[in-house]
Amino acid sequence: MPANPSDPSRRSEHSRRAILDASIALVGEVGYDNVSIESIARRACVGKQTIYRWWPSKGAVMLEAATQSLDPVVAFPDTGDIVADLRVQLLGILEIVTTTGFGPAYRGVIAAGQSDPDLLRAVFDQIIAPNVTAFSARLAAARERGEIRADADVQTLRDVLYGVIEYRMFHAMPIEPGHVDAILDVAFHGVR
Amino acid sequence: MPANPSDPSRRSEHSRRAILDASIALVGEVGYDNVSIESIARRACVGKQTIYRWWPSKGAVMLEAATQSLDPVVAFPDTGDIVADLRVQLLGILEIVTTTGFGPAYRGVIAAGQSDPDLLRAVFDQIIAPNVTAFSARLAAARERGEIRADADVQTLRDVLYGVIEYRMFHAMPIEPGHVDAILDVAFHGVR
Repeated sequence: MPANPSDPSRRSEHSRRAILDASIALVGEVGYDNVSIESIARRACVGKQTIYRWWPSKGAVMLEAATQSLDPVVAFPDTGDIVADLRVQLLGILEIVTTTGFGPAYRGVIAAGQSDPDLLRAVFDQIIAPNVTAFSARLAAARERGEIRADADVQTLRDVLYGVIEYRMFHAMPIEPGHVDAILDVAFHGVR
Repeated sequence: MPANPSDPSRRSEHSRRAILDASIALVGEVGYDNVSIESIARRACVGKQTIYRWWPSKGAVMLEAATQSLDPVVAFPDTGDIVADLRVQLLGILEIVTTTGFGPAYRGVIAAGQSDPDLLRAVFDQIIAPNVTAFSARLAAARERGEIRADADVQTLRDVLYGVIEYRMFHAMPIEPGHVDAILDVAFHGVR
């Protein structure tokens, strides 16, 4: 039986998407500080109460909008070449950072999170924890194929790759594809 | 001729230090958001106008207080062993991050900097640029002695070392001395 277009759960899924799309578009246009729950509601054609029913704060909506906009690029390909596959995933993230509202949304969320531990925990749960899981699985395959040392510290490798990207984002330093290659070179070959 | 204790430049140096010491102590006690210019002035026994005369914003005072508290640990020793020397410098920073008001001050400044480009530029000028200079000099010596590859990317190595520490700070993840060893191991030996 086809879903009824006036079905309440369909309508609320429609509103939810409209809110997240409006959030990421607005933050890209006017910056994190200039987005309000009111402006999101207006752009998404919903009431402010609809937003507050689902999210406790602007930071929480923005985090979910950021998470959704990252979604198409977070998966790790597995072609059997770990450096090439990490490069594809990192360049995908760079593309989202530099061409969508993700960059300002994420920077604003992390800034707000410095005085909002619940928001910072939500960043961990929604963005970091799934990445840790997927990264660990992809690197376990690389280890089995002998592409990395048996004793390589996979968690530190993960911290290095995403840490440098976030560091450059938070300091408003440019991040170019060449940085991804340079980070992978240091992390895989070492500077010795 | 000994300086006159009521000399205006001595009095203002005394006030300057009192303001920076009060700032770093207060942020360690009550957190960045709960520190006001007023509370710094009260603790330092100066007028609010004295603070505003020297710094444009709370972020700017906090940045200078943070910079001053880092001062004792930013220099790179040169024993001829680059990994040991970087380890000493990084552990010194970790000590300041975990035992003084530097951690909350720096997190608050970077958070404020996400919507204050002047403040972010001041972070670059006061903290990052001097570190880039000192790091490059120390690594040039290491390269001359053959401790790192001739083609090693020193700027990316720097991004990696401080990037991971800041990443863990901004996500409120613990940073232990073991992390420093693990980062140095990845960066010098690579995971291959």
